Amino acid sequence: MPNGPLMIIGGAEDKVRKPTILKHFVALSGGRDARIAVIPTASSLGREVVDVYDALFTKFGAASVEAVRPETRDQAHDPALVKALDEATGIFMTGGNQLKLSSIVCGTPVGDAILRAHERGAVVAGTSAGASIQSSHMVAFGVGGATPKQRMTQVAGGLGLMDGAVIDQHFDQRNRYGRLLMIVAQSPQLLGIGVDEDTCGLVEDVAGDAVMRVIGKGAVTVLDGARMVSNAHEAKRSAPLLASGVVFHVLPEGSVFNLSTRTLVPQEPGVDLEDAHELAEASRDLRQLVRDIAAADATPAAIRRRLKLRRTPSPPADPTRDQSPTQPQGDIS
Amino acid sequence: MPNGPLMIIGGAEDKVRKPTILKHFVALSGGRDARIAVIPTASSLGREVVDVYDALFTKFGAASVEAVRPETRDQAHDPALVKALDEATGIFMTGGNQLKLSSIVCGTPVGDAILRAHERGAVVAGTSAGASIQSSHMVAFGVGGATPKQRMTQVAGGLGLMDGAVIDQHFDQRNRYGRLLMIVAQSPQLLGIGVDEDTCGLVEDVAGDAVMRVIGKGAVTVLDGARMVSNAHEAKRSAPLLASGVVFHVLPEGSVFNLSTRTLVPQEPGVDLEDAHELAEASRDLRQLVRDIAAADATPAAIRRRLKLRRTPSPPADPTRDQSPTQPQGDIS
Repeated sequence: MPNGPLMIIGGAEDKVRKPTILKHFVALSGGRDARIAVIPTASSLGREVVDVYDALFTKFGAASVEAVRPETRDQAHDPALVKALDEATGIFMTGGNQLKLSSIVCGTPVGDAILRAHERGAVVAGTSAGASIQSSHMVAFGVGGATPKQRMTQVAGGLGLMDGAVIDQHFDQRNRYGRLLMIVAQSPQLLGIGVDEDTCGLVEDVAGDAVMRVIGKGAVTVLDGARMVSNAHEAKRSAPLLASGVVFHVLPEGSVFNLSTRTLVPQEPGVDLEDAHELAEASRDLRQLVRDIAAADATPAAIRRRLKLRRTPSPPADPTRDQSPTQPQGDIS
Repeated sequence: MPNGPLMIIGGAEDKVRKPTILKHFVALSGGRDARIAVIPTASSLGREVVDVYDALFTKFGAASVEAVRPETRDQAHDPALVKALDEATGIFMTGGNQLKLSSIVCGTPVGDAILRAHERGAVVAGTSAGASIQSSHMVAFGVGGATPKQRMTQVAGGLGLMDGAVIDQHFDQRNRYGRLLMIVAQSPQLLGIGVDEDTCGLVEDVAGDAVMRVIGKGAVTVLDGARMVSNAHEAKRSAPLLASGVVFHVLPEGSVFNLSTRTLVPQEPGVDLEDAHELAEASRDLRQLVRDIAAADATPAAIRRRLKLRRTPSPPADPTRDQSPTQPQGDIS
């Protein structure tokens, strides 16, 4: 059975006005049958955070919402917590401090239960810190800035729901190009994934490939350093890094990106409503023209009169205005 | 004769502690023979700005410093100003409001004199607004942010000292990835060049190619959208833009980049001093070994003794410590 969907949310997802992402999570988790486990361990306000998500997920129709809240590695061995995760159809990890979350759950029965849930097809979602922890390599902490500089961020181990990647969040809002790029410069085998606030990368298993669809207000930025040239091994202190030949992809809502092949999946281009309307009208005109010709009623004057009637239903047709520039002119044959 | 050097400075260049960039400008302009024209038109404090640069360039040894300060398009037709530019070996455009600068000088005799100076080999430098104006297309104004969004910035015409490019400044410090990327998404034929503060892209004509060397504390970021996929023609309002397959190059001090071919020019890798020292020591040891063998004095014990003497001059050699793990062990042949 394929791995379950991952929802990588960049933090500050809308909870009130347009809670698209959170609704999507409940729907994917089974809607009325969704059994949701909320892990608020990253947060210093775990209890209050659970209350918020409990209210929301219940409002969006989930069958049950349970808190799984280890606060120590010891508690992350609690069989009751493991059982709650094993029975969940959707797991939601909240924001906060990802290093707190990862250092409490990674390599414990609770951590293993999250991986197991993913493997059996359950949805695993996380926002902010809960997004960071999903990749094999995790941004532990660091500073903002557009230019990558040596030592501007620290990498720790993540849960590894997504291998060969490093996820960053609040990407646009906290200006994290630099730190994600520093990590990719030091580890070009890792795909850098930066997720904006109120934005979600929904990753699903499609014939063995990890395919991401973007939902929400911002964009997901993917940094691919496969062919990059860098001086990361010799840059001193906090020097800016050489990072030449990085390929990047800024992906707004509706974009689909194959993370396994590192390529954009082309989508049907959108159709402009005005274009469509004009085209439909032209089609009708042409069909009428064909009928007119068939009926041998195809003198230019007759056609002009007919077009005029169709396009300007009022005021009634006025033969003296036939030559106005808004009317079709000359022979139509 | 090849075009003169361009110095594209990202603003806030160091003027006191380590004024590398400004010294470089005076040296390139001829040092003791440098005749410098300062154009402070972008600034609302033109007179004071001229005083600062006058003091600095004089201190760095320039022969003369003259202000060329049109404040209206009419003044930009003043033959006295044109003459000052025609006689300059270096032109320096200050920071301020690039749209003020460009709308006063572009397409006037003063603007033409700057282009002419470049063509006859003079140095043209500009910082902040004075950097922006150098490209054919200019960021007029806009907002910060990492993710490119429709309408986040406005493009105006620049001087065109550099064709097919758009230059942005204060790049890292004001988080301008998004707006530069928006422009490249809308105009993929333009190379986006983002320059950090206290950093300079020095562009020279090398056999017909524009080759840029980076000087200073930060980095120059180049965005190449030649093969990008974007939805810029249909994105609504302030929606984030799809920008997939953009290649970028973050270039710190010492990097060299060919802007014409859009490729990094490889540099000799730096040599680590400690590595070099160890290698020199190993070389000496090997030469001694060769001499020992030639002298038929090459028993393992004799070699160990000799190496030991050389490596640990004090305390004096102690035969009982020959097997310590820091000593060479076993046969050396």
